[in-house]
Amino acid sequence: MTIAQRLADRGIILPPTSPPAAHYANAVRTGDLLFLAGKGPTAVDGRLPAGRLGREYTTAQGHAFARSAGLELLAVIRDALGSLDAVARVVEVQGFLNTTEDFTEHPQVLDGMSDLVIEVFGDRGVHARAVFGAHSLRSGLPLVVKAVVEVRRGRRRGRK
Amino acid sequence: MTIAQRLADRGIILPPTSPPAAHYANAVRTGDLLFLAGKGPTAVDGRLPAGRLGREYTTAQGHAFARSAGLELLAVIRDALGSLDAVARVVEVQGFLNTTEDFTEHPQVLDGMSDLVIEVFGDRGVHARAVFGAHSLRSGLPLVVKAVVEVRRGRRRGRK
Amino acid sequence: MTIAQRLADRGIILPPTSPPAAHYANAVRTGDLLFLAGKGPTAVDGRLPAGRLGREYTTAQGHAFARSAGLELLAVIRDALGSLDAVARVVEVQGFLNTTEDFTEHPQVLDGMSDLVIEVFGDRGVHARAVFGAHSLRSGLPLVVKAVVEVRRGRRRGRK
Repeated sequence: MTIAQRLADRGIILPPTSPPAAHYANAVRTGDLLFLAGKGPTAVDGRLPAGRLGREYTTAQGHAFARSAGLELLAVIRDALGSLDAVARVVEVQGFLNTTEDFTEHPQVLDGMSDLVIEVFGDRGVHARAVFGAHSLRSGLPLVVKAVVEVRRGRRRGRK
Repeated sequence: MTIAQRLADRGIILPPTSPPAAHYANAVRTGDLLFLAGKGPTAVDGRLPAGRLGREYTTAQGHAFARSAGLELLAVIRDALGSLDAVARVVEVQGFLNTTEDFTEHPQVLDGMSDLVIEVFGDRGVHARAVFGAHSLRSGLPLVVKAVVEVRRGRRRGRK
Repeated sequence: MTIAQRLADRGIILPPTSPPAAHYANAVRTGDLLFLAGKGPTAVDGRLPAGRLGREYTTAQGHAFARSAGLELLAVIRDALGSLDAVARVVEVQGFLNTTEDFTEHPQVLDGMSDLVIEVFGDRGVHARAVFGAHSLRSGLPLVVKAVVEVRRGRRRGRK
């Protein structure tokens, strides 16, 4: 079963990728590694969420935001490599969370991203990870997630 | 002399590795690189430290916390690769420090990790590094440290 | 045209590299990747800037600081590889910005670094990127920038 079929079976729809927020690229491949730029949650009803976890947003909402950002990262990978089947391994995920000073539930929030990639890629989705609370994020986003993935050997180089 | 012998000579004892804080792995290998998930200091008397550098903890205590986190990262590497002798180079270390707003002694704190890996690996332990003060960390930990290491060519792939 | 000629044509002068702030190296090469340690803006009149974006410094000043940090990162790359012509690709840039809690213009600030490397390397300078506001930075610096670059195959290994 291809990853595209798995997504369809589970009703997972990838959003269109947003342009980079400034002068950079959504993804850069070097050797067998694909480095992804940080993405926040997708806009809902045309509005990007803004606010802090622990104040404007709950941990459960943060989990949903991390999954939303993850869906866009999957779309970026697909666009960069031609297919999600080209992913050999999700290597590393980092989460920058916009939190209150006393927020402590970072792992539960970033699981929104981690659960998604494990659901989609199975064992190949299990990654190393790090997360922290940021003092501020662009546009007041509640979180930004970035990742590094390994590309299957022999796959054509995607657009850089 | 093996690294295990060097540790024994210096009385350095590695702690058991803790399970990942959520849905991820402590380490993922890709090619000759091993990406490690972030680890905080080890519990003392069954309690994890919680608090900010510059308020609850001094810079010297922070240095000890960074060394403690580093000891667990060494245990993670050993478990992932079978032996610390498989390390060709410590490539990069990042430190996320839970600080007050006006804390400035980040380098002295992260040296607790850096001094450890240079003591253990010698020149192969000298790494690139970056550190910053975080707004919040999981469970209120005083710091989290992550790293990327290069594996000697020809070593069997460790468990992923 | 070599990169050195391009720099000369544009009147871009690289500063001397500063020593690492503590026990680490400015750059470490692993395979075809060069990992750079984080650098802040260069001192002006012998004084390093200290303060927060959004309070002591404007977004435009932040852009200039990011360019300044980028110039030193270019000098680090040149010293590590022998020549900037050895760069195959700027892979990833990360920016840690010392901001007020409500600062939101992170992309515009980090463009100071991104614009520089695109000016210097052209398409090979386009990179993946992530940026966030830090709670505190060493010495109160307004920002720290780090990067990963890909080295052209066949280039001799630089000093590690």
